[in-house]
Amino acid sequence: MFEAHFQTFEDPETGVALSARLSAFREELTRRNLTGFVVPRADQQQNEYVAPSEERLAWLTGFTGSAGMAIVLTQTAAVFVDGRYTLQAAKQVDAKAWTVEPLVDPPPEDWLVRHLTAGDRLGFDPWLHTSAAVERLIAACAKAGADLIAVETNPLDQVWIERPAPPLGAVSVHGPQFSGTAEAEKLKRIDLEIARLGVDALVLSDSHAVAWTFNIRGADVSHTPLPLSYALVTKDGRPTVFIDHRKLSNSARDHLEQTADVEEPAALAPLLTELAQRGASVGLDAATASDALSRLITAAGGKPVRGNDPVSLLKAVKNQTEIEGSRMAHRRDAVALARFLAFIDREAPTGALTEIDAVEALETFRRDTGALKDVSFPTISGTGPNGAIVHYRVTRKSNRRIAPGDLLLIDSGAQYEDGTTDVTRTIAIGAPTLEMCDRFTRVLRGHIAIARAVFPDGTTGAQLDTLARQYLWQAGIDFDHGTGHGVGSYLSVHEGPARISKLGTTALKRGMILSNEPGYYKTDAFGIRIENLELVVGTEIAGSEKPVNAFETLTLAPIDRRLIDLNMLDGDELSWLNDYHARVRHEVRPHLDEATKVWLEAATEPLSL
Amino acid sequence: MFEAHFQTFEDPETGVALSARLSAFREELTRRNLTGFVVPRADQQQNEYVAPSEERLAWLTGFTGSAGMAIVLTQTAAVFVDGRYTLQAAKQVDAKAWTVEPLVDPPPEDWLVRHLTAGDRLGFDPWLHTSAAVERLIAACAKAGADLIAVETNPLDQVWIERPAPPLGAVSVHGPQFSGTAEAEKLKRIDLEIARLGVDALVLSDSHAVAWTFNIRGADVSHTPLPLSYALVTKDGRPTVFIDHRKLSNSARDHLEQTADVEEPAALAPLLTELAQRGASVGLDAATASDALSRLITAAGGKPVRGNDPVSLLKAVKNQTEIEGSRMAHRRDAVALARFLAFIDREAPTGALTEIDAVEALETFRRDTGALKDVSFPTISGTGPNGAIVHYRVTRKSNRRIAPGDLLLIDSGAQYEDGTTDVTRTIAIGAPTLEMCDRFTRVLRGHIAIARAVFPDGTTGAQLDTLARQYLWQAGIDFDHGTGHGVGSYLSVHEGPARISKLGTTALKRGMILSNEPGYYKTDAFGIRIENLELVVGTEIAGSEKPVNAFETLTLAPIDRRLIDLNMLDGDELSWLNDYHARVRHEVRPHLDEATKVWLEAATEPLSL
Repeated sequence: MFEAHFQTFEDPETGVALSARLSAFREELTRRNLTGFVVPRADQQQNEYVAPSEERLAWLTGFTGSAGMAIVLTQTAAVFVDGRYTLQAAKQVDAKAWTVEPLVDPPPEDWLVRHLTAGDRLGFDPWLHTSAAVERLIAACAKAGADLIAVETNPLDQVWIERPAPPLGAVSVHGPQFSGTAEAEKLKRIDLEIARLGVDALVLSDSHAVAWTFNIRGADVSHTPLPLSYALVTKDGRPTVFIDHRKLSNSARDHLEQTADVEEPAALAPLLTELAQRGASVGLDAATASDALSRLITAAGGKPVRGNDPVSLLKAVKNQTEIEGSRMAHRRDAVALARFLAFIDREAPTGALTEIDAVEALETFRRDTGALKDVSFPTISGTGPNGAIVHYRVTRKSNRRIAPGDLLLIDSGAQYEDGTTDVTRTIAIGAPTLEMCDRFTRVLRGHIAIARAVFPDGTTGAQLDTLARQYLWQAGIDFDHGTGHGVGSYLSVHEGPARISKLGTTALKRGMILSNEPGYYKTDAFGIRIENLELVVGTEIAGSEKPVNAFETLTLAPIDRRLIDLNMLDGDELSWLNDYHARVRHEVRPHLDEATKVWLEAATEPLSL
Repeated sequence: MFEAHFQTFEDPETGVALSARLSAFREELTRRNLTGFVVPRADQQQNEYVAPSEERLAWLTGFTGSAGMAIVLTQTAAVFVDGRYTLQAAKQVDAKAWTVEPLVDPPPEDWLVRHLTAGDRLGFDPWLHTSAAVERLIAACAKAGADLIAVETNPLDQVWIERPAPPLGAVSVHGPQFSGTAEAEKLKRIDLEIARLGVDALVLSDSHAVAWTFNIRGADVSHTPLPLSYALVTKDGRPTVFIDHRKLSNSARDHLEQTADVEEPAALAPLLTELAQRGASVGLDAATASDALSRLITAAGGKPVRGNDPVSLLKAVKNQTEIEGSRMAHRRDAVALARFLAFIDREAPTGALTEIDAVEALETFRRDTGALKDVSFPTISGTGPNGAIVHYRVTRKSNRRIAPGDLLLIDSGAQYEDGTTDVTRTIAIGAPTLEMCDRFTRVLRGHIAIARAVFPDGTTGAQLDTLARQYLWQAGIDFDHGTGHGVGSYLSVHEGPARISKLGTTALKRGMILSNEPGYYKTDAFGIRIENLELVVGTEIAGSEKPVNAFETLTLAPIDRRLIDLNMLDGDELSWLNDYHARVRHEVRPHLDEATKVWLEAATEPLSL
């Protein structure tokens, strides 16, 4: 009855079968006179989701997390992962061949300094690292007296016999009814940024930036409609888009050629070299441009200018068409969410459902809208102790039955052509404990504090982050992730540069969309997260002395009233909750079947102290 | 009856009489083949309060603010000041000779680039600038094609005929009953920091650091018991303190010689040179070490290592003796504050008092404690529109009568041997307006949010700052300064490295003392600020998952109940206020005369909704 088309539940390969790969790789390194090699979990553009052809880390080590790195030396080899993947890595990698080490604190470079010996030759593929990452490797090698060697071709690709072909997802035009701003207009704004930066040209090394600028979308990686591509925009003259021509229909090609020359990806290096030979300064995005681009420009006599991709901020501020699209997408998504939440309330208390059933049901309700292009990330469906694993991804092996007394945490999102969604709800199955209600209510109060925040122009996400944590801190607890991330418009569900986190130094601007997702995780017991998307809007206040902003909540789904300790809410918080539920009811009810209508009415009934 | 001994109310000299100084200075520059010179408001150690002999900027330009810079070129001359001093500078400097320019945004270097011409020779005194500041000057000169010249002797000192002699304040021993930790123990901790930094020696270029390390105090500048001095601590071997011997009594000298060699300040350069000639790496505090020290080390073949002075963090964390001393100092200060607030309530509504009367009365009540060493900064006493000037300092000319309908903002502090205080109260004279009460209550709610904050170990001041602003933001208003600064222990009232501000990236540690001082300023109308000092303490919370901290309020003075709109407070806020007032009453009442007792009882009467 229910099916997931955009997500699988298979367990990844595990250790033993992979040992031959490591041996073959080490032999190849020896052939090339290298004593070690760095294998990051990265493609050429530092994408969050990478194509199967770029899953070098998983192929070599078995570790399938979304962030990590391996370093292979002659005698030792280590996989570096962050805190959320420590347990997973320990299960996935062969402990006889690999040690599992921290990715962040201390960084892998510390490990390198300890394990390299003078005279070692450590190789790396400059297409898979940013320049900043390479500088850290250089410093580590220098300390150890080793040499860092940039390779021309990746030795791992040499031994990866059945490496999948690069993806060739069809490119589609993201029409004006969705994009709202024509390519020519966007290019004018980029020209202004090029002038501001004082460079001769700008490389768009982030495919998201190319997609936004030229109003195209693609199908090269999972969950994000990315057309893997580069663009080069020069101070004067026509921009060039670099993309595999096999991805382009005639109409997509015609669309692109209205504002740009279209070249194969292989043409980027010679064109950049030509520019650089004329002494050009070339802007590169520090976060996504590979070190190879920087080397190529320098070698040809040009000047690489690393900085923040200016398109990132332009893209983050949504125009009226994108904003209206997002509202539509959220209303559509809300119908699926209401059906899903009603279904869980009906079926789960009997113990009939598993975590995978929940994923399949939710995706099916979303497909029923007729507009679902993809899920915006693999749904996190965790019940009981699995809910406490922040980046849990259910597999057939880990799949747990949803049982009375559990909390079910479900974090999911959709890609619709008019907008990207991301929502988390935590649902009580049967009667929750007092502790669950206390924790849920603290998380909810933090969520409401962000939703109700009013803040002057120029306020950063770092300045708001504590509002979400204050009630947890009062109980001596916290959550170990940011409060919110930017969200794209039919693009990545994790979009920079703004975020609500102590590291969020970008000012929040009207038109930005951010998630608001405080949580609480009790290890081996339960997990709680409440997430809505919020649009930054201007607001009028009598007597105000400066422009002030607030959030308009885009997500429309009931928050589980059974988990709220009403005694802990103040009057303003209760009003917010009742107003929100009234709005959900008003906007969603007309589009529901009768049974779901009845459920929604009960779920959005006003609460009083 | 009342007198101020530690603060004057004279207006500074104004423009006209000073024009001869500028001419003489320009002639001296010509004699030295310089076409310009940079005159910062700074001594050799970047002190907040400088000795009269270091007031070069004021002598040359007439501008007496606590931050600023002048640049004199052949044809033009400019005084650079920040926003708080724009009006004052315009009044104090001769507009025919000087333009007044921004100190911060854009920085003076932008002005330099526009006004220097190729071939210009801009001089500066490397003892009066940090290396970071010099690097900015170098970059500006390079852009303009000018040369930046470090002078051996300051040309301004050459023409400043009646320059006061450097101060020779007597050094006193800060005994163990106040310091709590012996010098030898402090030096052990500094040795660990030297090892951590991996340097051969550390220069203490901040006299506060010297005072703390060697448990001495001095009397060289106003308001801070600083003994102007340097120290050099080497990896192995006895440290050296560099201080004018005329400041040392036999007992002070004996005290110092127990742990250090004592040399004249002139001995620093040769000793550093000797170290550097042996190739030593020498740690320098980036914030206070003059560029001259860095040049000297480099020239002799050593390696200057710029960074944060490690003593700064050691000093910021108060030990139990210092904490108990601060509590005592605050109880003592509270008696003076209660007498003062009662006096204002009795006398001001008749229009009998001026701003200066208030300053004199408060200082007199503090002197009556018998323990006052100095005020910790010139008292800010601003009524009506003067209260809206954040750094207002009353003079005979600006002095305003305190009139019914006004708010009186009084920000003051004391130096006692056992602790430094800093407190602001805003007092309603006669009936306040509804607007005043609304604004006051928002400021108070922010103040209470900080005072009641509970936060995990590792939380920074930046993470707390928004708590103080949230209720102002809701009305579209804000205050344009940080929420709080660190406070020394019978040392500077403004002490780093921790602060509560969006720039406060230092984690708050148990034992730190910080101010909590949100405000609101309505230009040309009134000013509000509520300031207490807070001690960071650990707190126990049932079910807590990590070490959590909170604030213990040190300041004990009633908050004006007549300015509170009770309808705007929630129950927790009201409880905090009533608990605070009960504590003030309990701790202060026994030490008051009968009339003040009666006043205090009324001023601390519990409020109810």
